[in-house]
Amino acid sequence: MSSLPLKVGIAGLGRLGKRHAQALAFNTRHCQLVAACSPVAAERDWARSELGVERLHTDFDAFVRDPQLDAVILVTPTSLHADQTIAALEAGKHVFVEKPLALNVPDCERVEAVARKHPKLVAMVGFVRRFDASYANAKAQIDAGGIGKPFLVRSQTCDMNDPSGFFVAYSAQSGGIYMDCSVHDIDLARWMLGNPKALRAFASGTIALHPGLAEHGDVDNGLAIVEFEGGARAVFYASRTLAHGHETSTEVIGTAGKLEVGHGAARDRVVTSDVHGVRHQSVADFFERFAGAFQSEMAAFIAACRGEKALTLTLSDATEATRIGLAITRSLRSGQAEAV
Amino acid sequence: MSSLPLKVGIAGLGRLGKRHAQALAFNTRHCQLVAACSPVAAERDWARSELGVERLHTDFDAFVRDPQLDAVILVTPTSLHADQTIAALEAGKHVFVEKPLALNVPDCERVEAVARKHPKLVAMVGFVRRFDASYANAKAQIDAGGIGKPFLVRSQTCDMNDPSGFFVAYSAQSGGIYMDCSVHDIDLARWMLGNPKALRAFASGTIALHPGLAEHGDVDNGLAIVEFEGGARAVFYASRTLAHGHETSTEVIGTAGKLEVGHGAARDRVVTSDVHGVRHQSVADFFERFAGAFQSEMAAFIAACRGEKALTLTLSDATEATRIGLAITRSLRSGQAEAV
Amino acid sequence: MSSLPLKVGIAGLGRLGKRHAQALAFNTRHCQLVAACSPVAAERDWARSELGVERLHTDFDAFVRDPQLDAVILVTPTSLHADQTIAALEAGKHVFVEKPLALNVPDCERVEAVARKHPKLVAMVGFVRRFDASYANAKAQIDAGGIGKPFLVRSQTCDMNDPSGFFVAYSAQSGGIYMDCSVHDIDLARWMLGNPKALRAFASGTIALHPGLAEHGDVDNGLAIVEFEGGARAVFYASRTLAHGHETSTEVIGTAGKLEVGHGAARDRVVTSDVHGVRHQSVADFFERFAGAFQSEMAAFIAACRGEKALTLTLSDATEATRIGLAITRSLRSGQAEAV
Amino acid sequence: MSSLPLKVGIAGLGRLGKRHAQALAFNTRHCQLVAACSPVAAERDWARSELGVERLHTDFDAFVRDPQLDAVILVTPTSLHADQTIAALEAGKHVFVEKPLALNVPDCERVEAVARKHPKLVAMVGFVRRFDASYANAKAQIDAGGIGKPFLVRSQTCDMNDPSGFFVAYSAQSGGIYMDCSVHDIDLARWMLGNPKALRAFASGTIALHPGLAEHGDVDNGLAIVEFEGGARAVFYASRTLAHGHETSTEVIGTAGKLEVGHGAARDRVVTSDVHGVRHQSVADFFERFAGAFQSEMAAFIAACRGEKALTLTLSDATEATRIGLAITRSLRSGQAEAV
Repeated sequence: MSSLPLKVGIAGLGRLGKRHAQALAFNTRHCQLVAACSPVAAERDWARSELGVERLHTDFDAFVRDPQLDAVILVTPTSLHADQTIAALEAGKHVFVEKPLALNVPDCERVEAVARKHPKLVAMVGFVRRFDASYANAKAQIDAGGIGKPFLVRSQTCDMNDPSGFFVAYSAQSGGIYMDCSVHDIDLARWMLGNPKALRAFASGTIALHPGLAEHGDVDNGLAIVEFEGGARAVFYASRTLAHGHETSTEVIGTAGKLEVGHGAARDRVVTSDVHGVRHQSVADFFERFAGAFQSEMAAFIAACRGEKALTLTLSDATEATRIGLAITRSLRSGQAEAV
Repeated sequence: MSSLPLKVGIAGLGRLGKRHAQALAFNTRHCQLVAACSPVAAERDWARSELGVERLHTDFDAFVRDPQLDAVILVTPTSLHADQTIAALEAGKHVFVEKPLALNVPDCERVEAVARKHPKLVAMVGFVRRFDASYANAKAQIDAGGIGKPFLVRSQTCDMNDPSGFFVAYSAQSGGIYMDCSVHDIDLARWMLGNPKALRAFASGTIALHPGLAEHGDVDNGLAIVEFEGGARAVFYASRTLAHGHETSTEVIGTAGKLEVGHGAARDRVVTSDVHGVRHQSVADFFERFAGAFQSEMAAFIAACRGEKALTLTLSDATEATRIGLAITRSLRSGQAEAV
Repeated sequence: MSSLPLKVGIAGLGRLGKRHAQALAFNTRHCQLVAACSPVAAERDWARSELGVERLHTDFDAFVRDPQLDAVILVTPTSLHADQTIAALEAGKHVFVEKPLALNVPDCERVEAVARKHPKLVAMVGFVRRFDASYANAKAQIDAGGIGKPFLVRSQTCDMNDPSGFFVAYSAQSGGIYMDCSVHDIDLARWMLGNPKALRAFASGTIALHPGLAEHGDVDNGLAIVEFEGGARAVFYASRTLAHGHETSTEVIGTAGKLEVGHGAARDRVVTSDVHGVRHQSVADFFERFAGAFQSEMAAFIAACRGEKALTLTLSDATEATRIGLAITRSLRSGQAEAV
Repeated sequence: MSSLPLKVGIAGLGRLGKRHAQALAFNTRHCQLVAACSPVAAERDWARSELGVERLHTDFDAFVRDPQLDAVILVTPTSLHADQTIAALEAGKHVFVEKPLALNVPDCERVEAVARKHPKLVAMVGFVRRFDASYANAKAQIDAGGIGKPFLVRSQTCDMNDPSGFFVAYSAQSGGIYMDCSVHDIDLARWMLGNPKALRAFASGTIALHPGLAEHGDVDNGLAIVEFEGGARAVFYASRTLAHGHETSTEVIGTAGKLEVGHGAARDRVVTSDVHGVRHQSVADFFERFAGAFQSEMAAFIAACRGEKALTLTLSDATEATRIGLAITRSLRSGQAEAV
């Protein structure tokens, strides 16, 4: 375990990239954010003025080979994740890459193959929910036998409706609602169930508010059932159209009890009683819901790079999430159950 | 235990009287509602046409001596409770009388004295909350030792604001907010704490919305602390001005845990999530909150009259509730702690 | 509207039959329970001694033709429902029959055909949840436009685990978990969504605790997705194995909000805070959960027979619930999506 | 607004001091923790090794005059607060001091007088709850008129029972349960009610589990009512003996609604349903409950020192909290209502 702080660079300074960059700059111990890479001048300026980052790159190849860097954080478009992760590993850098690792399994497997050649480098995919205090508590209760043997996960990722329909245009590159949203639930289900092998998937969806999704073969509300070897099951729900806020929740049902995480999505501890009833506000989006988890995630990455604490989350987990997400997406389009 | 149904008459057919009459006519086993007494023709008509009651009285004395009756239910003005209860007992009838038994202790004691002379007759005061399923569950948990030794009760009776201010005019005869509302909480506190002797009371209140109360020495929001022998304490809150509904709730704190009854006052099991947040509606008034308890209360009275199951609630409980309520009311006016 | 009470007889005095009989005898206005039919002597004795029923039958044909009866309540084995309902209608009686109407669609349609020939007789199937105050409130909110256009229902019927495995032996005649449990959710989904036509169903289940179900092709935890014409969707979950109680809950998601009914399944209004956390007890079974609804259901049947208030629930609703339940059950066995 | 980070030192590295020190070292922007003062060698070692602090003092006078420091954080025994705050101001340092400012009003006023002579220095008392996101949301709703005119605060600070009875020995110097715990609620009540002048206080308490408190004139469960000019009222509850966790909660009741903060004290978003019921865990102590608020509090102090954002919390608020807390404490001992 080194006593020197890890030197980190970040590529991609969109909304989520900025969030990670701030966490690294101000709230993560044992690291220094020393470089950033973005094709957007305003983003580079932000990194300099707000975070004090001095090494600013426009070219990813130069960035990833920057000799000052021990590790890189990739918050770039999904289509670039696999190649950039490989480039980082080959440049000898630890790498954190946002989810999903890729929109196809061969790309995931290419990354896994390269990573196996660099066993001393950490390669981590951003399944942020594993680092949320509530999900971690749930997992700990399961591991302690609190609910007996878990056999069913019900999990949802539901966003508040964005009337601008930003995600409609984005649908082409996001891989659709299951790859963009449910991939988190898929990863959670595998984690909570002890990583059983997924066998089959069935999906069905509908378009409630955003007809433009039809041309992408996408929906704004999607359901899916996944069957695992050994009998475990998962059912997922993803929505782009909630009226009250962002409600990410997960239920894990076992032979001796069940756990529920995130129901109601309360923003805080305030309840108002007035003419509208007894009510609380919900979190507005996943940034608000997972603000703490984003910090913990960065801390876990840094700790792993520094050899302090190994990750339980592996590249293989990311590959499986993509594999299952793709089978669900195929089922949405074929109308039939699809083998994973 | 008789196999014949108990023959019952009711005096007073205002809003609460009607509620009791319906319970007796349609939802209570082993009884027949055969007579009613009211000075109001419309109320007598209602009893005949809606409930099929044939023996209709305008004169209380004739009513209470009606030879057809085994028992009477008194839902008359508080100022009449003591004398009418005594008249009923002296006429050989079981008697149920609404709370409070009286607005002064000597009247309560007069009733107790007469009742002692008629040990075979049931005399019951309508502390309806003891018959609510939730309060009964709480009491059972306490009796089973679930919270250790209970030493503190926090209890409130809070009505939704009635802009008509009906209760302002009614304040003179109701005895004020503590005698009208808190008397229920006082009875609950004694019940939950195991009937300790009350020593002192301190009250403080305010007028938030109904200035007309000032001339009656009354308030629309009142707080009170009661000290019991042995160290137990109670704190009460009564309000006439809630915005969201009727919220009656009680907390009992013991050395090994605490119980809370009625928090949030949900009307039913529906939660709505929309632009106003995640919310439920509350019950509108005590009729809605205690609909089931009113039925159970009548059933308990009938069962006691028939000798099936003795009451734990006694006239002495009613006397103590009045005694404590009066001390609280004195304190509100004197500004000092008052001996009970 | 007759002023005479409706004369009612009941066939079947098992656990649920007794519940209905008590409601009719003691808690339902405008009716008299005058006859009962059961092959079991103890059940007939119970009806006589506890309910005062004097006309006791062992033979269903004699019962259904009893000239004293205006209406019959059938709480008999599912396999008898269709023929007994037809017999009742042909004998000129109003008829209430427990759900499901039949385990196959032709039997349902036979009943519908006979009912059409007796338009003055009421024929009602016991989808009790429609008479629950919370479900009724939810439906009213939807009808008032409170959640915009509803497009997704998520609904579950989950029983507390019965270690005796009673339902395993019963599986053969119950029609399996979807016909026995989810049929309620199916009916609710259709009701909440405005009766769209069901197109396809997909099911997947698992056996968590009761391996004996395998020989019946049944499961103890089942999931299903149903697709409706026009884009609406429903997802169902049925379980026999909950650890904490009976949790029936339903979520209806619309374009402007969502409603949730029954989450958490609180038994009452008590919350206990102790070493086990902050907690409430759940209802133990559907009898406890729907105690009030069973009474309202009987009242609605009597009111319909007396011409006071028409039912919105039709035999056709029952046929559709069976049709959808059967498609789900076929899908469980085929592993493929099945046309409804 | 300076672009240089503020140089900060901390005196006192007990449990809460360490918490503040970590926030300053790792989670607060625009500051550097450069010095620490403690008479305890282990604490100084911890500051060096864990936080990298190089300037370590044993002598408070040297510390407070350390020319490297712009600001000091005082987490020392209450009896030292006033004099140390004055010393810091006179040394030209901004100062943050833990609550309560002092256990008597003259000491508070001495600090206020010195602070008035140094108008460019920030002097802040650690009423951490004002910096909690939920309390801040509640205050914002009030300021926006969401509940009409607030007229009643009910607030509690309740700790999980510590069987070691640490606080019994500590009672002598803590000032008793009201000065130690309720002082937070007092400050909140004033804040939520718009700083009305307190007129009178009445207190009553009991000893449920810790008889040793009697010799200090202290209790382990205390109630108090405070009357404010203009009619507003507050009722406080402080306990040392909860079984389930630390439950700090506050209710603010206004003419058009009410707000509740912190009810149930959920540790996180996990609900477990098992044989013990449907339940959540509570926070264990105020560190867990206010982890985020401690960070926000430090950030607010630093921002104020740097001239970025003025504080609304003043020394006068601290004086009033002490003044009211003392009146409550006097009332506990006298048994009478006491003028504030």
